[in-house]
This record gives sequence, structure tokens and C-alpha cells, in this order.
Amino acid sequence: MLSSTISELPTVHAHCDLPCGVYDPAQARIEAESVKKICEKVADSDDPDFRTRAAIIKEQRSELVKHHLWVLWTDYFKPPHFEAYPELHTLFNEATKLAGASGTKGGFDVATADELLAKIDKIAEIFAETKKS
Amino acid sequence: MLSSTISELPTVHAHCDLPCGVYDPAQARIEAESVKKICEKVADSDDPDFRTRAAIIKEQRSELVKHHLWVLWTDYFKPPHFEAYPELHTLFNEATKLAGASGTKGGFDVATADELLAKIDKIAEIFAETKKS
Amino acid sequence: MLSSTISELPTVHAHCDLPCGVYDPAQARIEAESVKKICEKVADSDDPDFRTRAAIIKEQRSELVKHHLWVLWTDYFKPPHFEAYPELHTLFNEATKLAGASGTKGGFDVATADELLAKIDKIAEIFAETKKS
Amino acid sequence: MLSSTISELPTVHAHCDLPCGVYDPAQARIEAESVKKICEKVADSDDPDFRTRAAIIKEQRSELVKHHLWVLWTDYFKPPHFEAYPELHTLFNEATKLAGASGTKGGFDVATADELLAKIDKIAEIFAETKKS
Amino acid sequence: MLSSTISELPTVHAHCDLPCGVYDPAQARIEAESVKKICEKVADSDDPDFRTRAAIIKEQRSELVKHHLWVLWTDYFKPPHFEAYPELHTLFNEATKLAGASGTKGGFDVATADELLAKIDKIAEIFAETKKS
Amino acid sequence: MLSSTISELPTVHAHCDLPCGVYDPAQARIEAESVKKICEKVADSDDPDFRTRAAIIKEQRSELVKHHLWVLWTDYFKPPHFEAYPELHTLFNEATKLAGASGTKGGFDVATADELLAKIDKIAEIFAETKKS
Repeated sequence: MLSSTISELPTVHAHCDLPCGVYDPAQARIEAESVKKICEKVADSDDPDFRTRAAIIKEQRSELVKHHLWVLWTDYFKPPHFEAYPELHTLFNEATKLAGASGTKGGFDVATADELLAKIDKIAEIFAETKKS
Repeated sequence: MLSSTISELPTVHAHCDLPCGVYDPAQARIEAESVKKICEKVADSDDPDFRTRAAIIKEQRSELVKHHLWVLWTDYFKPPHFEAYPELHTLFNEATKLAGASGTKGGFDVATADELLAKIDKIAEIFAETKKS
Repeated sequence: MLSSTISELPTVHAHCDLPCGVYDPAQARIEAESVKKICEKVADSDDPDFRTRAAIIKEQRSELVKHHLWVLWTDYFKPPHFEAYPELHTLFNEATKLAGASGTKGGFDVATADELLAKIDKIAEIFAETKKS
Repeated sequence: MLSSTISELPTVHAHCDLPCGVYDPAQARIEAESVKKICEKVADSDDPDFRTRAAIIKEQRSELVKHHLWVLWTDYFKPPHFEAYPELHTLFNEATKLAGASGTKGGFDVATADELLAKIDKIAEIFAETKKS
Repeated sequence: MLSSTISELPTVHAHCDLPCGVYDPAQARIEAESVKKICEKVADSDDPDFRTRAAIIKEQRSELVKHHLWVLWTDYFKPPHFEAYPELHTLFNEATKLAGASGTKGGFDVATADELLAKIDKIAEIFAETKKS
Repeated sequence: MLSSTISELPTVHAHCDLPCGVYDPAQARIEAESVKKICEKVADSDDPDFRTRAAIIKEQRSELVKHHLWVLWTDYFKPPHFEAYPELHTLFNEATKLAGASGTKGGFDVATADELLAKIDKIAEIFAETKKS
């Protein structure tokens, strides 16, 4: 249960550029899950109007994925993190590309959405490790 | 750890109005946590420019809390839920008011942010119960 | 008639979350009128590009209907109103659903837009009564 | 009286760039009324945090005034209107300036908000005349 | 090369409604160039999903063209400019219409995008003259 | 003259995520110039309301700087660019941080705005080189 999990969290994460200090890769992940579901629903439908609506919303949700990841990359991660995890730059660059025209924006392929989710999970793992230390 | 928790979740929740079916009270909670941190940081600062920036950002984050809660109320919850949980309407109305002018928008009071978080947690509990059934 | 309703209001208005005190159901109604016209225009056209544009704009206008109604529900209406008009919660919940995926967002049906307009008119009537008292 | 003006209109309104054909000066006027109320409320308050919030919201509402007026000027009014009403360009230019840095954005002066409202009313009169013909 | 040009510029221009004094017709032009490329790319593609994405993005970019032009018309140009260049009002009105439903929003015609670019260039010429004096 | 320069450009650059192929570091630079002017104007003013407006607008303009840079980093630059210019990741990360809380958002320091502009110019140089090849 997410709700119980959240209430157990000693510190929740951060994101606004005050900065408030509350960063959380879950924001990007929720949007990416949404993108995946959109692709799945389009695969199960043959209504062209539904496909159009799906395209409109997938564009927005993919953009939100990019935005949330960019915020983490710029606002949360600091030079020592990039030294400790030299793959971070490439990881973020690839993940945001995967939510763009060459990724989930460019089609309705569920496998692409899964690749995006996998990249976000790798980022989330590194994020979690940096929160511990 | 939120990141590990998320990867355990068989289905994460939903929110876009396709609808994709991915609703998650965590979205409102992350913004409300941010609002609380903003209030705490302002209490620790005597820089008037910082206070102005905090006011700007708190306004945005509180609005996001309202938006995410409105989406849950309209898009996720259905008539049978409102029958099963007759307190839901009032709960959402009070929670969104607590993120507005008479709540976290109207001041820098940490206690108000805590009240808002408590309301969101109640909503998240009901949400979790409806996901089980 | 919206126009006649509005002219009966002693003071029109209100909406920002200062709050400025200027709430007005006309904001939601104007957007819903737009949604209805979009559906009518699509019915009279067989240009697929026009239909795509209509889908894009109908999505935005429907979202604005939802937003303006949510603002009224949370920011204008107070506990005594909900006691005096126990149907208000359901009315707002149904109206916002009618502007969502199961309503005007989900198709180009003029009848659905009319249902939405009728709900908004009921809300506007109650709104007008509360302004008088 | 805005309300009386609106009630004279045989059909209300229109605004989206499909175009749906639903234009309505009431949209700009509601925002301008809000701006005026904000100025009045600030005059009655000596809370600096309230003044900051008022500045944030007045900025947004003034921008909305500008936007709604620009939409009318570009999307509703056509060359024959500009021939029939040669003052229209200046009227819109002055009105949008009055909602900008040299107008309501630049201060909390109620008289400036009244000037803005008067300009909008002049536009609304011309608008109403063009709808009749 | 634009980049080298920019570094040569003694003062770049301005646009925010503080006002900061940095206005620049390049903002509208970049968006209009984008609109033109979108039309060209659609002409070279027979993928209906690509056409839908192109419609979504063309709608946004055309709106940005309108916005950047409106800002110049209201915020940069002053009464003496309108006296010196009496064609300015019509030029801006036609340019913003060319980015709307009767222009680039309404279709994928490259020639329409070229007309829009030509209007923006005329505005940019007048703008450049007013900066010199 | 920027306007004359632009009309000489055979192809202007690109930015939307169709992608249209029109990227241009000028977008980030115009916003950063605006941020610098805002800081300068605040230094010359002792009006607290002006300072509040400046804070609001500086927050938005700095966010636009970040956004335009992120778009370049993700959408324009490709793996071969990152191999040829290994400093690019750090350059973008530092530039976007300079437009954030630890940079231009966090204060009214003109020197910080100059540092940001210098970073953008370095990015623009590399961008120009990649366009040539």
C-alpha cells in the first residue's frame, strides 16, 4: 500500500526550487506509468477519436516525465553525486530522450514505455543510495 | 525507502483523464510535504527576499495540492465509493480548503500544513481500501 | 437563460484564491458553451484535421470547465451552504465528471454538452440564491 | 453595468481559437473586477504577507485580462469592424497597457483598476453592437 | 551564425512585463519557423500518428507566436511609435490572425507559414528602426 | 541588429519536440538577459512592491532559462556530441543550477546573472560548432 508506505517514511522527498528539499523520483514514475497505460489502452481500442485523445495526453504526460527528471538532475544532484556516479549524466539524458520524440512521445509502443520505466528505476536506485549516505 | 516500495507495487496508481487509471494520493502528499518544508524554512530565516520567494512557491505548491485532490475526487471516486464513504465529499472539500486562502496559501503556519497532511492521509487510507476491494 | 440569470445577480463574480471574492459560474458556462459549439461544428465537418484540432481544444475547454467548477466548490461554497443545499456535493461531482473522460472529453456528443450545461445552470441557480441571502 | 450589457446580448459569447465562436468580454471583466478587489483588500490590510500574496495574484489576473482582450482583438474582431470602429485598435492597446506594468500590474491603485474597467466596458459596448448587426 | 551574432550584440532586447526592457521579435520568429518546419515535415510523412502530434504541437507553437507578438504590440510599442508607423496596428492584427484559426493553426499549408514569417519580418524591421532612434 | 541577422540566416534553429529541428540558444539567452535587467532595475529602486514584482518575474524567467537549456540538452544534443564535447553535461548542469535557487532565483545579484550568461554563451559556441559540421 502506498499510503501506508508514505506515512512510514521518515523524510519524504523534495522538488521545488526554493528548494524545499523534497525530491522524489516517484513523480516521474507516476507519469511514466500513465504513459504506459495509455499505450496499452490504445492497443486495445480501435476508436480513432480515442487514439487522438491518447496522443494529446501522452504528449503532456511524457513532457511531465521529462520535467520531473530534469528537476532531479539539476536541483537535487550535486557535483559529489556526479563524481560518485559518473553514469548519472548519461542516465538522465537517455531517460529524458526516452520520454521525447524518439521515445514515448513518438509512438504508442509499450516496450518503449517499459524502457523509460527501467531508466527511471535506475535513477531511483541511485537517488535512494544518496539519501542514505 | 520509497524507491524500493515503488518497485514492489504491482500496479502504481493513476491520474490522467484519458483516463489511464493511474491515480495516486502521493502526488498531493508530495506537494503538501513541500508546503510544510517551505513553512519550516521560512520560520528559520529572516531574509525578506527568501520569504517572498517562499510565498511565490507556496502559492504554486498549494494550488497543485488542490488540483491533485480535485482530480482524485472527480476522476477516481465513483458513486459507489461516495455511498460507502459518505464522509468523502466533506473530507475533500476540507482538504482543498486547507490548501487554499484559509489554509496553507494564507500563511506560513506549520500546524496548518500538518492538518492538510493529516486530511490527505485520511483520503489516502480510503483510497487504499477502495483499491483492495 | 444564462444571460438573464447573470443580470439578476446583484453582484456578479469572484474567483481568485486571495480570495478576491469575485466568483461567477459564468466562467464555467462560457467554457461549456464553447465545448458544445465545438461538438456542433465537428458534426458539420468531415475534415479529419479539423476534428483533430477540435479534439485538442475540447480537451482544454473541458478541463477549464472542471477547474472553474472546482474553484467554486472549494473556494466559494462554505459549510453552511452545504447544509442548506445537501445536493451540492453530488451536483459538483457529477458536473465535473460530465466535463471529463466519461463526459465531454470522451466524445463529440452535443447531448452530453447539454447535460453539462444543465448541471452548471443548476449550480448557478444555487449560487444566485446564496448571493441574495 | 456589465450585467445589463450581457443580458442584452442575444447570444452569449465565444472565444476558443477553433474558433468556436463564443467570445465574451465578460471574461476580461471578471478578471479586472478581481484585480480591483485585490487593490481594495490591500488598502484595508497592513499584513505584509497578504500584500505579497496580493501582488502574486494581481500579476496573474492582470495577465489574464490582457490575454482575454488580445483574444477578442485578434480572433473576434474582423477588418470590417476596424473600419466601422477606427478607435478599436487604440482602445485595445490602451486597455491591455492598463493591465500591464504601467497599469494594474505596476501598483495597487484602485483608480487604475477603475480605468481598466471603463476601457473594458467601452470594448464590451462595441462588441455588443457588432453582435446585433 | 546566430550565436556569434548574439555575443556581438551590445544590448539584447526585452520582453517581460516588469518591464525588463528586453523585447525581441526573434521570439515570435523562432516559433513561426518551427510552425513552418512542422508543415514541411507533415508534407513529407504519411504517418497519421505523426500528423496528430504535428497538429498538437503546431497549435502550441502558433499560440506562442500570437503571444510573443501581442507582448510586443502592448508592452514594447508606445503611442509615438503608432503615430510614426500607422500601419503597425493592422500589421500586428494580421500577423496574429495568420497564426490563428484562419492561418497556421487551421492547416498545414507551408505558404501560410511563409506569409506569417513575412509579417513578422516587417514587424522586426520597424522594431529595429525604433531601436535605432 | 538581431532582426537583420535573423533574416540572413538560411535556416534558423529548432526546438519543439516533434522535433521540428529548430533549436536556438537565443531563447535561453533572451530570458537570461531579462533576468539580468531585472537585477539591475531592482538595484536602482527602493520600492518594496517593485522588488516583489521583480521577484515574481525573475522566478518565471529563470525557470524559462532552465527549460530552454534542458530542451537543448535532451532534444538537440546527441551521443556523438557528448563524445566530442565531454564538458557538455557539466556545462548544462552548471548553467541550469545558475538559473536556480543557488543562482539567479536565489537573489538579485547581477554578477550571478553574468555568470549564467557566460555559461549560455559557452553552450551557444558549442552549439554553433555542431551546426557547422
